[in-house]
Formats: sequence, structure tokens, C-alpha cells
Amino acid sequence: MDFAYDERTRDVLARTRTFLDEHVLPAEPVLDAQVAATPGEWGLRPVVRELQEVARAQGLWNLFLPGPRGAGLTNLQYAPVAEALGRSPRLGPVATNCAAPDTGNMELLAEFGTPEQQERWLDPLLAAETRSAFCMTEPGAASSDATQIATRIRRDGDHLVITGHKWWSTGAMNPGASLLVVMGATDPDAPRHRQQSMVLVPRDTPGVRIVRPLTVLGYDDRDHGGHAEIAFEDVRVPASALLGGEGDGFAIAQARLGPGRIHHCMRALGMAERALDLVRERAASRSPFGRPLAEQGVVREWAAESRIQVEALRLLVLKTAWLMDTVGNRAAMTEIQAIKIAVPRAVQQVVDRAIQVFGAAGLSDDQPLAAMYAAARSLRIADGPDEVHLSSLGKAELRPRPA
Amino acid sequence: MDFAYDERTRDVLARTRTFLDEHVLPAEPVLDAQVAATPGEWGLRPVVRELQEVARAQGLWNLFLPGPRGAGLTNLQYAPVAEALGRSPRLGPVATNCAAPDTGNMELLAEFGTPEQQERWLDPLLAAETRSAFCMTEPGAASSDATQIATRIRRDGDHLVITGHKWWSTGAMNPGASLLVVMGATDPDAPRHRQQSMVLVPRDTPGVRIVRPLTVLGYDDRDHGGHAEIAFEDVRVPASALLGGEGDGFAIAQARLGPGRIHHCMRALGMAERALDLVRERAASRSPFGRPLAEQGVVREWAAESRIQVEALRLLVLKTAWLMDTVGNRAAMTEIQAIKIAVPRAVQQVVDRAIQVFGAAGLSDDQPLAAMYAAARSLRIADGPDEVHLSSLGKAELRPRPA
Amino acid sequence: MDFAYDERTRDVLARTRTFLDEHVLPAEPVLDAQVAATPGEWGLRPVVRELQEVARAQGLWNLFLPGPRGAGLTNLQYAPVAEALGRSPRLGPVATNCAAPDTGNMELLAEFGTPEQQERWLDPLLAAETRSAFCMTEPGAASSDATQIATRIRRDGDHLVITGHKWWSTGAMNPGASLLVVMGATDPDAPRHRQQSMVLVPRDTPGVRIVRPLTVLGYDDRDHGGHAEIAFEDVRVPASALLGGEGDGFAIAQARLGPGRIHHCMRALGMAERALDLVRERAASRSPFGRPLAEQGVVREWAAESRIQVEALRLLVLKTAWLMDTVGNRAAMTEIQAIKIAVPRAVQQVVDRAIQVFGAAGLSDDQPLAAMYAAARSLRIADGPDEVHLSSLGKAELRPRPA
Amino acid sequence: MDFAYDERTRDVLARTRTFLDEHVLPAEPVLDAQVAATPGEWGLRPVVRELQEVARAQGLWNLFLPGPRGAGLTNLQYAPVAEALGRSPRLGPVATNCAAPDTGNMELLAEFGTPEQQERWLDPLLAAETRSAFCMTEPGAASSDATQIATRIRRDGDHLVITGHKWWSTGAMNPGASLLVVMGATDPDAPRHRQQSMVLVPRDTPGVRIVRPLTVLGYDDRDHGGHAEIAFEDVRVPASALLGGEGDGFAIAQARLGPGRIHHCMRALGMAERALDLVRERAASRSPFGRPLAEQGVVREWAAESRIQVEALRLLVLKTAWLMDTVGNRAAMTEIQAIKIAVPRAVQQVVDRAIQVFGAAGLSDDQPLAAMYAAARSLRIADGPDEVHLSSLGKAELRPRPA
Repeated sequence: MDFAYDERTRDVLARTRTFLDEHVLPAEPVLDAQVAATPGEWGLRPVVRELQEVARAQGLWNLFLPGPRGAGLTNLQYAPVAEALGRSPRLGPVATNCAAPDTGNMELLAEFGTPEQQERWLDPLLAAETRSAFCMTEPGAASSDATQIATRIRRDGDHLVITGHKWWSTGAMNPGASLLVVMGATDPDAPRHRQQSMVLVPRDTPGVRIVRPLTVLGYDDRDHGGHAEIAFEDVRVPASALLGGEGDGFAIAQARLGPGRIHHCMRALGMAERALDLVRERAASRSPFGRPLAEQGVVREWAAESRIQVEALRLLVLKTAWLMDTVGNRAAMTEIQAIKIAVPRAVQQVVDRAIQVFGAAGLSDDQPLAAMYAAARSLRIADGPDEVHLSSLGKAELRPRPA
Repeated sequence: MDFAYDERTRDVLARTRTFLDEHVLPAEPVLDAQVAATPGEWGLRPVVRELQEVARAQGLWNLFLPGPRGAGLTNLQYAPVAEALGRSPRLGPVATNCAAPDTGNMELLAEFGTPEQQERWLDPLLAAETRSAFCMTEPGAASSDATQIATRIRRDGDHLVITGHKWWSTGAMNPGASLLVVMGATDPDAPRHRQQSMVLVPRDTPGVRIVRPLTVLGYDDRDHGGHAEIAFEDVRVPASALLGGEGDGFAIAQARLGPGRIHHCMRALGMAERALDLVRERAASRSPFGRPLAEQGVVREWAAESRIQVEALRLLVLKTAWLMDTVGNRAAMTEIQAIKIAVPRAVQQVVDRAIQVFGAAGLSDDQPLAAMYAAARSLRIADGPDEVHLSSLGKAELRPRPA
Repeated sequence: MDFAYDERTRDVLARTRTFLDEHVLPAEPVLDAQVAATPGEWGLRPVVRELQEVARAQGLWNLFLPGPRGAGLTNLQYAPVAEALGRSPRLGPVATNCAAPDTGNMELLAEFGTPEQQERWLDPLLAAETRSAFCMTEPGAASSDATQIATRIRRDGDHLVITGHKWWSTGAMNPGASLLVVMGATDPDAPRHRQQSMVLVPRDTPGVRIVRPLTVLGYDDRDHGGHAEIAFEDVRVPASALLGGEGDGFAIAQARLGPGRIHHCMRALGMAERALDLVRERAASRSPFGRPLAEQGVVREWAAESRIQVEALRLLVLKTAWLMDTVGNRAAMTEIQAIKIAVPRAVQQVVDRAIQVFGAAGLSDDQPLAAMYAAARSLRIADGPDEVHLSSLGKAELRPRPA
Repeated sequence: MDFAYDERTRDVLARTRTFLDEHVLPAEPVLDAQVAATPGEWGLRPVVRELQEVARAQGLWNLFLPGPRGAGLTNLQYAPVAEALGRSPRLGPVATNCAAPDTGNMELLAEFGTPEQQERWLDPLLAAETRSAFCMTEPGAASSDATQIATRIRRDGDHLVITGHKWWSTGAMNPGASLLVVMGATDPDAPRHRQQSMVLVPRDTPGVRIVRPLTVLGYDDRDHGGHAEIAFEDVRVPASALLGGEGDGFAIAQARLGPGRIHHCMRALGMAERALDLVRERAASRSPFGRPLAEQGVVREWAAESRIQVEALRLLVLKTAWLMDTVGNRAAMTEIQAIKIAVPRAVQQVVDRAIQVFGAAGLSDDQPLAAMYAAARSLRIADGPDEVHLSSLGKAELRPRPA
């Protein structure tokens, strides 16, 4: 047992942190200004492109992707890097081409894509020449129950025809997101986990109708392509657009979840660390009623509680990554569920306390806290509400054990 | 001891509920559409005016104001009405001319205003011909510590000259808000609670500069006039614009707080009841994994916990109102602090659970929950962060008692 | 709506408080000494008898019992008196003959007993000449599910024969508790709530075997008669020992619950107030690291949170009492469940914080806190674990409402 | 980074678990019976001696002690073993001579003792021929503030004379505990952390007066030597009884804390795992209202929440142990404080939920849960109340960091 990061990790992490401090954090107000200047746009702003140039030049690129196409880091090696990037959630990940949902889509393409699919979609995504969205959740369904997915994909000769209604397709408001990865039922009568398939749909295919953007606690996330409601009205794609085989949809979606949760959780812990940094500065600079916040019992208690939560949960996420690397996603199921539940709510609490330290300023966009709060809150629902995972984890825990 | 509402309350409450059901709730999507159609505007939308006509005709008008100028309800009588209005937080209060911050400003004018001030400002406010804002909080100050207020009001012959910087002036983005009630120091060397004065400043006075709107967890509240940052640059008003006497500012601000907290808390409980109604509907209509949400243990537990919180805290607010009516605000200090702390966080929790029941839909603006969440969260900071009140309440609780 | 206690309440309450201060609190160390001197005994100690003489002389006797046999107080009038008595949980209630489980048993006898039963059992109980126990819970059953009760009562001519196994019969270790009120099934095939009957069994009946005492978090409560496990081995009583009719057992048990929960909850709030008094004294007298506890942020926060919980929940209990008095137990079901859930856990928290203020002393029996902690913890299970009530309350809350 | 236990750990851990399952768990009811048969005794019961024989024969002995005198395990290697022992808190540790407070005392003797002191005290302790107590806490002091310690040790020629009053001396009721390690001030005017010294006092020295046993939530822990209040009335020992140098008391006490907290926390996690095992069995065997507990939403949720807490906190404790092994106690200060705060309260919660699953049985001593609950609760105070550590941890967290 060894709690030290290995040398590769320490190297990439140190360079990532330097990149954050020197380039990304100073770019945050620039992004704000660019967004304010172009309120009607949903795509990446110029400052992101500039950061991407720097990151690529420094070899801080596609760090999330294991194997030769990416940086070749293991989950365990990438995890602390994801945390570092998460400190600037709107810029860090995208600057290094490590932003969701593209990361998950690139993983799928790398693992399940044909050479043709990889050439058409994966290469440009890896080069950040395009972006993508993942279309799974539906307005009328409890999406954690895959059997409720109503989108239908039917074969028509050499083509597939997609009909259905999706929402919360993150990034899809961005006209620069050329690829939609769409899940739908090819065979509703198949066994529960063989009903679904996954199709690669160009966003400009006839019949794809972007209905409207959705907001998350008031945020439309327009600098990241927002969250779209999309109607698929007899959308016709060649059969070669199928990702994996027919009926593989559920399995592919599951494969996407493991690393995705590591990424989400580590970035969220990065937000928590950022919040603690902000609290540290604020507590040193404000003295209501003549006494610095840093000396007030409640603020100290908050800082301590937050530190404890972050330290314990980071270890749990790292162990989960290690399990995924060593014994695989399936054997890490308990831990993957555990971090999905525990991290977002803890981070929300850390950020909540930070907001309280800042007072009204913490609720505004003068600080990144309010947006982090919304992000953490939404993670308690993304990939299924926590309660679904709690129930499943509890069921496993209560299963009688061999003597 | 009697826990039944009196006859006057029952009558007004019944009529208010009917008004809500028949007019206000159906108007919510209309408001959404009108706001979507006029994204650049900060004032009231036409549907509000229509509701106001109906409310006035039904005698549901200025219900918050005791005495002959208002509906003449006591705090205790008005409280459940405020709760009913809070079920539709963006429309209920404003439709009946019972919306903050005008309510507090009207109370001040009614209690401390000269006949001239009342004629100029109170009458049009009571008639909903204009609106107003309250300018107290400052960017550089811990506003719960009145001595930190940096805005200066100096006398110059027959005039007062105001210099300072305010923010979180709710409603002040609205060009139709003609009155700003501004707090600033007339004598920074006076005893702690005699330094401040309150001045009535027309919004169009030269030197009043609306700097920018602020957001609360992503919401700009533009249908209510938003939250403004305002610079006061040598703003000159006649000395007759002083509300009350010089040095009365702190006392006037305090007088504003008591009833204001009753209103805020009861409206918040109304939001909680609305959230519970929505949960009830949703839990009956969704069945993930083949079992109605209403039969799932966690959803039942949530509903029960929410019900308990609402029932206990409503009683505490009502008792506070009764104390204010019978022994006065000062004797009700413990209770006023208690509800300020306890109600918003409980309501946030109730709404948080409701969001979780709705999943991603709960985070969007398809439901009123996300906006309620932001509103409840902001109440934990408005009028001073909870911790200031906790500390003060705890100090009083720990004071040695006579044997 | 009126939050003031009526005159009768104020009078009895004032006299009760004086009795507590002058007689009961000073008797606490006397009781400790008497228990230490007679470790093997389970009955009342002499100091209790002395207090009972004083209470009776002062008219502070059987205050819990409505109607002419008792003090004639309503539930609402008695509630604050129960709170006052709860401040000294081991002495206050028993000194005034208001201690569980006798109170519940006396209520049943007064409501359902025949004149003969009342003469034999109720009169001596009202005179505190004997004590009683209630035998419902069974080791092998989830006792909140009445159908699981395995004790059988079969008719044998003019007699009833009881066979079964009970535990948690509070008070039954006391040889001076002459009456056991026993619930068992007379007809296991009857509809769910008509299976049970209630029988009055003299503790010295052949076949009644006191198996052993049980402890609650280490406490055996031997000054109160402890908590007994009892075997009923072909226990034969005359048929006239039936309380109410055959099949009435469940209904009688339910009738016992309503007032019992008011009493439990109010006494528990009295414990919370006592804990707060102790905290107040301690916080004024200790200064770790050179600063009085009373000035430390966390202690203030605790005191405030405790005060808020106590104030809100007291009102909820009082409203429940008022509902029981005005519309009956059945219509007060939501509130009766709510207080059952909310009060004990809040009181446990209040006491928990108080223990933390006292440090190790708080865990010992030098302070009444540890015993209060155990008592509050046990109330989260007594009369059914909270979760059963939460689920039932949540089910009712989620029931669709008429439009 | 590697989350797998090393080979040595896996070996010892496997053998410890087997020892637990085969010998210790079956001995629990035997201990209960022996204690019941000898209620007046405070020493070890025969079953403990028998288990010690087995453990010694199996090489499961003094596992806590690093270096050649003990088993030579690092903190990191011993930690999971301590967890395994903690599953049977009254027997596991003592059976392997790994029970507090002897472990801490042996560590001190091994590190700071002279050869003579080691021969006299350490060797018999290592052989379990005697036991010991640690006398630090005082009734009149906030013991986390070392300057408040009022016990005085003054030099009188070749002797030291001790005067003072201690309590919570765990194990000291046991006549077989021959050694008291006593902390007192040798120079109250020295700098804050140089005032105290540590002295080895034979329990039978004239002037040592065992005043009385104390209880923890009703438990006297008589099978472990209880918790004693002790008066030191001019207790005279030779100067050679000084442990370390004069003024070293505080530093020695600190040295004791680091490993002690690892041990306490890991044993506590062992209790949590035991509680989860019991819940698993109970949830499978009970079906109130016709549905197994294991299928009820709330029970699943509890099991999941407990599992998450245990997994995250175990990692934090293990990392703390690793830090102590690699960079030393001082550098691990944040983590040592973090686990001290986080683990006991989490374990109390885990046990609390388990009690609730068991209902009233969980509060009795038919299950080990109630005693575990008391133990976990007391850990929130032992070594200083959590709040002292929270404040200190928060202070460190808020300290401005170099850019």
C-alpha cells in the first residue's frame, strides 16, 4: 500500500497545475467578457482556442484517454490531473480537450468504433476540430431505467431510421458539435439489457430538430454548448452509423459510465479545492464586527469539515480508479456507485459553505461558486439520481454473504 | 391557546387561495412566454397588470399593510395569506401588491414618512403605479455590521449629498422603480447605532448610476426588476428627502426587518407547499423500474420529513407574528431570529428533495422548483447570513438567567 | 389563534415549576444515594414517597388524567405541565403520579374498565398504592406490525389462558407493580385489527415468570422498575379480567398512543430544556484556552440550534394536543406521527450537544445528560421505530388530493 | 499509488480474522456469563486468559508494537489488523494484548523508558502479566488545554511528590493494573508545553486513593477495569520514576496520540463492519408488514450510506498511518486530526442505524450494538472533544498559503 502518486503522475500533475495558474485562471475573466459580448452564441469562445494551442504545445492534451491515441495515462494517473483541471471547470477541461461529454464519446469511439468511424469522428474530436453530444435522457422516461427509453431505431434496408425525443443533450446547442451519439431501442422485445443500440448521427442530418435549450438552476452553460432538447423525426442514417452491434447500447452506455464518474468526481473535488482557496482568501480579508472571519469558530469549523470531506473522498475516488485499472469496472461497481453518490453532495456542501462565507457575492457570478453549486447539484441527478444508486448499493450490501 | 385561524383570516385566506387557483397559477406560463418575448426588459410584464386589476377588484390588495391605508390585517392574520401567495412566488405577491421590497418600503413610509413623503411616494406605491428599491448592502462591507457601511450622506445647505456604492438593490434594474430608499452614514463618529440615516432618492436623480445587474445562482429575476449594483456619485437631494430624523437609519432598518421576516418566511413555506404538491403529482405519475415513486421508501420518507418541517416551522412563524402583534418586535427577537435561520434552510431542503424526485426536469425551468431553490438559498444570506443570527441567538440563550 | 397558555394552565404550571425547583431537583442526589445503597432493588425508593406526599398535598396529583377522577386538565393544558415534570425525568413524573407506563394504563382503565376493574386497579393506581406495566412487545416480532404478535389468549370456560413471551415491559421488574396489562391474540383469524385483546393480569398469577431485566444503552432503570422480559406460561385469569371486549385490543392500544405521545414528547422537551440550563451554567464556568465556552462560536451555534428546535417542536406538540382535544385522535394522526418522529431525535441532538459541552463529565452519571440521552434514543424506537411512522406519514402525504 | 495490502499485512490479517471467527466471537457469550457471575469484579475474566494463550501461541501478540519488542508491524500494516480486532471490541484487542490503554503505555515505555523502567514495567505488560492506566484528565480542567492541569509533581530530594485529582483513568479500577502513568506539572511557570512531566506510579503506592468508578452512558466497563476517579494525596515515588525528562510530559503525551488515534479509529471501523454484518443478518430474517427488511428502501439506503462512510474513512485512516510511517506524526497532523473527528461520529451513525434496524433489541445487551454506540460516542470526547480538533484543523486550513 502506497499513497504517493507515481512519477508520471507527479510530472503531468505539476505541469497541469502550472498551466492552470499561468494560463487558465487568468483566462476566466476573459471568457466572461467574451460571453458577455456574444450573448446569442452557444459555441466555444476564442479564448478557449488560444488555451488549447498552449495546452497542445505543452503536451497537456487528451490526457483522459488511455492507450496510444491519448496520453496513455491510467485512470489512476489521470484522476489527480482531472482534479487539477476541475479547479477551473469552465476552462480547464476544455483547454486540454478533456471536457465532457466529448471525453466519453471519444472513449466509446476508441473502444467500439470501426476504423471508418474513428477516422470520421474520433480523429477530429481528438484534434478538437469538432465537438459532440450524447443523447440518452428522455423527457418522458425515468432514464435510469433503460427499458423506459422510447426512442426507436428501426432498420430500413441499408439505413437506420431514428424517431424519438431526447433532452439534456449537453453540448448540442453548439452548432460546432457535429456528432450526436444517440441511444434508442432497436428491439424493445429483447431481454432488458439487449434492447438498446447506439448510433452516430451527424447533427445536420435532416429530421434532427434542436427544440430548445434547457437551464440548470438558471444557468444555460452557453459557453459549453448548453443542454439541448432534441427531436429526432424520422432521422435516416446509413447502417454503418451503428456503434458496436445491435443490442449493444446498454453495455456501451455502461462502459462509458465508469471512467466518466472518475472524471466527474475528480473535477468536482477540484471545484471543492478551488472553493477552499477562495474561502481562505476571503476569510483573511474580511472582518465583520471587528474580527477576521478566519478567527471565527463557525468558519474554522466549516473549513475543517470541508477539508475532511475532500481528503476522504479523494482517496475513495483514487481507489476506485485503481480498482478499474487493476480488476476492471465490474469489480469496482460498489466503489463506482459510492463515489457517484458521495462526491457531488459533499462538493455541493463545501461550495455551499464557501458561498455562505462570501455572503451575497457568493451567489453572484463575480465568484465561480454559484456556477459550481449548480454543477455539483446537477451531478446528484446526472447518470441517474443518487437514490437509484443508493438502493442498488444497499441491496448489494445486504446480500447474504457466504459464511 | 387556540390554533385555529380567526374568521377574518379564514375569509381572506379562502379568497386568496381561490384567486391563486383561478388566476395566478394559470398565469405562470403566460409570464414565462412574455418574459421570453421581451428578454431585454426588467419591468413588470402585462400579465402582472391584469392580475393586479383582478386582485384589486376582489379586495385582495395591500394585504400586508396594517392600519387604515392597507387591508388592516395583523401580522398574524396576514401570515397565512403570505404563505398562500408564496405558492406562486413570481406572481402571487406582486399581483396583490404584496411583493418585496415594496412592502418594506411602504411600511417605512407609512410609519416614518411625512405627509408630503407619503403623498409623493406611498400613495403611488399603494396604487402599484410605481415600484421601489432598498439600497443598503455594499460590495465592500459585511452588511450585517452596520458600522461598515461606507456610503456617506453629507449635508450641504438645504441639500443632502450622497456618495457611495450599493449592490443587491432588488428591483432597481426596473426603470419603473422610481424610488430608491438609501441608507448611509450621516455621522460616522456617532454611537454605533446612530451613525446611519435613510434617504428617499428618486431613481432618476443625476449621479445615480445603475452599474449592472447581478444574478442569484444564475437567475437575474428580470421580471421583478432584478438586483442592481448602483453607484451614487454626488447625488444631491433636498433635505426633506430624509426619512425620519438624522441618525435614525439603523432603527428604521430594524423596524423593517420584523414584518419582513414574517413575510419572507411565510412565502417560503408557501413555496414548500407548492413543492410538495408537485411531488405528490409526480410521485403518482412516474414508475421507474415498474414501481410508482409514491410507493418507494425514500420518496415517502422525504415527503414525511418535508411535511414535518413545514408544520413545525409554520407554527413558529405564526407564533412570532403573534408575539409581534401582542408584545412587539423587540420582545419577539429570539423568535424573529429563529425563523430567519430555520425556515429558509428547511424550505431549501424541501425543494431539494422535490427536485430529486423530478430528476433533471426539476433543475430546469419547466418546473418552478429550480427558481424556488435559488430563492430559498438566497434567503439564507439576505438580511445577514444565518450565522450572524445564530451567534446572536446563541449568545442570548447562554446569558445567565436570574435564579 | 392565540399562543398564550390559559389561566388554569398558567396556575398549574407555575405551581409545578415551584414544586420542581423546591422539592424535586434537590431530591435528585438523594435518589442517587438511595439507589447506590440498595443496588439489588427494583422498586421506588423512599425519597419518591416523600415527594409524592408533598405533591398530593399541593394538588399536583394525577395531572395527566382528564375527567373527574384526575385533575381534569385537557391534553393542551397538561402538555406544558408534562414538560416541566420532564426536567427531572426520574423524579418529576413519578412524584406527581404522572409517570409512564402507569399513566397509559390508568387512562385505559378509566376509559375501558368496568366498575369492578376500576375499583380493583384504577383506584390504587390513582392513589399510587401500586404500579403497573404494559406487556405488548415481543422478542420475535416486529411489534409495530400487530399481526405478528404471537401471544395467545384462549378461552377455557370462565377463564382466559395466556401463553406467550413479552419483553420491554417497563416497570415490571418492580415487585410493587401488581398489574400487568397484557395484549395477545384471541382470534388470529379475525380481520387484522380485530385479532387482539387486552387482559388485566395480576403480576403474582401462577405462570407469570419474570425472566430477566433488560438494559437500554447500559441503563437498567432500576429505580423505575426496569424493563422486564416475561414469560406467560399457561397463565389463567377469570374472564372478567378482559379489558373492553374481545378483539378490542388493537383499538385500545391505539387509544393509549395518542395522549402517550404527547406526554413522552413534552417530557422529552423538558429534558431538552434541562440540558440547555446545564449548558448555560457550564458555558459560563469553563474557559478552555482562556476563553469562556459561552463566547465560543460553536457553543453559541449549538445553543441557538437547540433553542430553535425546542421552540418549533413544542408548538407542534401543543397543536397536536389541541387537535386531540378539539377534533379527536384520529383527525390528529398526521401530527401525532410527526411529533413521535421529530421530537425524540431533536431532543437527542440537544442532549448530545450538551454532553459535548460537558466533555467526559457529560457521559458520566454526575450529570443527568447521559441518562437523558439513553431515554431520548429509546424513544426513537418505543411505540414503533420512527421509520414505520415516517413511511406511514409519507404515504398519507403522497395520497392524491381532490382538486 | 497502490491500494493493496502488502504480503505481511495480508498474512497477519488472515490469521487474525481466523482467530476472531474461531475463538473470539464464540467467546463473547462466555464473557457475558462470567461477568454476570462476578458482578463485583473489575479485572479480566478467565476467558480472556484462555484467548490470550491461543493468540500468543499463534503469534498474534503485541501486534501494535513496532520494533523488535513487538510484532514489528508498521502503523500501516497494523491498522487493518486493529480493524479486525475491533469487530469484537471487548475481546479482540485484549486477547492479543493490543488493548488500550496498555498499548499507549507500552509505546511510551518502549520509546522513553530507561532500561530499568522497561524491565520493571514494559516486560510484564508485554507478557500481559499486568495492566496499566493513564492518568491525565482532571475533573476541574478542560483537559485539551494542558495548561489547566492542576496536578502538581514536586521534587523532594530523591523523590517526587504527586498531589492532584484525576478521573477517566481507564482500566484503573482493576486491581491487576499495577502501573499508573501520571501526568502533572513540575513547573507551572515554564513555557506552555514544558510545564508537564510524566511519572510512573505503582497503583499500590500510599496516597493513591481510588475514589470511585465512572460510567459511560450507563456502562461501567468492569470487564476492562472500568474508568476510575483517583486522588493522589502526597504520593511519593523515587525520582527514577520520571518517564523521560522533566518538562517532557506534553511531548510524551503527544507522541502517544498519533498511533493511538490510528488504533482507536481502526477498531471503531471494525465495530462498524460488525454492525453491518449484524444488519445483514437481521435484514434477511425479519419481515415486518410482510416484506423483508432487506427489501425496504430505508434499510437499503442506510446500508449503502454506512458502506460509503466506512470505505472512505478507512482509506483516510490508512493514509494517515502511511504518513506517520513515511514522514512522521508531525507531518501527518491534519490527517490525525481529521480521522479523530470523522471516524467516531461516522461509526456512531453506522451503529445508530444498526440499532434502529434491530429495534428495541438493539438497545439491549443482547446485541453488541449498544455498547459499541457508547464506545463510539465516548471517542468523540476522548483525547479532547472533536470541536477542539475541528477548530485547530480549520485554523490550519485557513492559514494563508504561499503563492
